[in-house]
Amino acid sequence: MILCDIGNTSYHFLDGQRDFKESVNSFNPTSITKEVYYISVNSAVNEQLRHLENWINLASFIDMDKYYATMGIDRVVASMAVEDGIVIDAGSAITVDVVKDSVFMGGFIYPGVRAMSACYKNISPALDYSFNFSLDLETLPKNSQDAISYGFLKTLHREVISHNLPIILTGGDATFFKEIFPQANINQKLIFDGMKKIISII
Amino acid sequence: MILCDIGNTSYHFLDGQRDFKESVNSFNPTSITKEVYYISVNSAVNEQLRHLENWINLASFIDMDKYYATMGIDRVVASMAVEDGIVIDAGSAITVDVVKDSVFMGGFIYPGVRAMSACYKNISPALDYSFNFSLDLETLPKNSQDAISYGFLKTLHREVISHNLPIILTGGDATFFKEIFPQANINQKLIFDGMKKIISII
Repeated sequence: MILCDIGNTSYHFLDGQRDFKESVNSFNPTSITKEVYYISVNSAVNEQLRHLENWINLASFIDMDKYYATMGIDRVVASMAVEDGIVIDAGSAITVDVVKDSVFMGGFIYPGVRAMSACYKNISPALDYSFNFSLDLETLPKNSQDAISYGFLKTLHREVISHNLPIILTGGDATFFKEIFPQANINQKLIFDGMKKIISII
Repeated sequence: MILCDIGNTSYHFLDGQRDFKESVNSFNPTSITKEVYYISVNSAVNEQLRHLENWINLASFIDMDKYYATMGIDRVVASMAVEDGIVIDAGSAITVDVVKDSVFMGGFIYPGVRAMSACYKNISPALDYSFNFSLDLETLPKNSQDAISYGFLKTLHREVISHNLPIILTGGDATFFKEIFPQANINQKLIFDGMKKIISII
């Protein structure tokens, strides 16, 4: 059984224990003849895969009433992997989703590291600093780098810990956020865990 | 006595009870012959005013050791107007500064409404929503507009109220934030209050 999580730039495969990526631009999905269970946020790829019988879109097996219509399928499936916890997917956006007793309670969207850095820089060149992830979260800043780092990180931190749930980090920037959430577990295969859960009940 | 707060685009004057603005591009400071006490974040204007005897820069009377070297003079002076409180200046950036017993405790910088809106939009057209300031802050969102509104506003809200201090709102977007901080006082002359305090002790 092959699993595949398709984003805007790549196909992310899990074949047994081995995971690997292929570029959306160059990969030809007809080159795989085995069954592939996939989810995709890429509508162009979705359209292409709709005609391939061995590519099975797991989105059709999800009861979206438990989530909401415009919620990214990747967020939905990552949330399904969790029984009790708060999932932080730190990518181009940071999505934060709360699950209690396997029920999705809601979630929010925060800008990712790169987007937020550009945001500060666009306001003023005087705010063009990289974020300090080893910032002291207990002390109000008295320098510019920490003032923007605190604005970005402490506000998010306070909201996340207020839910008092186990924290699961995933996504490309997960290791950065591990610094401010040392109690969190990083799980880069969370989406595949969610996909397996869906498959186990269909 | 005329007071003037100079930003990147305008001179903001207070002459008695009357306040008015003049454009940085068109206003000629030599047209005023009375004494003007000013602060300025505009280095080009600063250079021009340095040669005019009747324009008195209040920055030179401030002990910056109580603040920090790169802190905007407008934040410093607004903080000086407050004895105990948290000052939210909601402009192109949102600066949040904490003052206790007239001592500056530190502060942070968060993106302003317009910058944050552009930030979400730049991540994905799917995040191009206006912010919902009448969002229910007690409930995790289950729709896209509230998901980004919560990301922007609830995180800031939680941090601000955690300090348990009177909230003073100022800046062009103050009225928007009054919706999520109904207990706050709006004071659009906070900087002038701070300037008067400096003048009273020099």
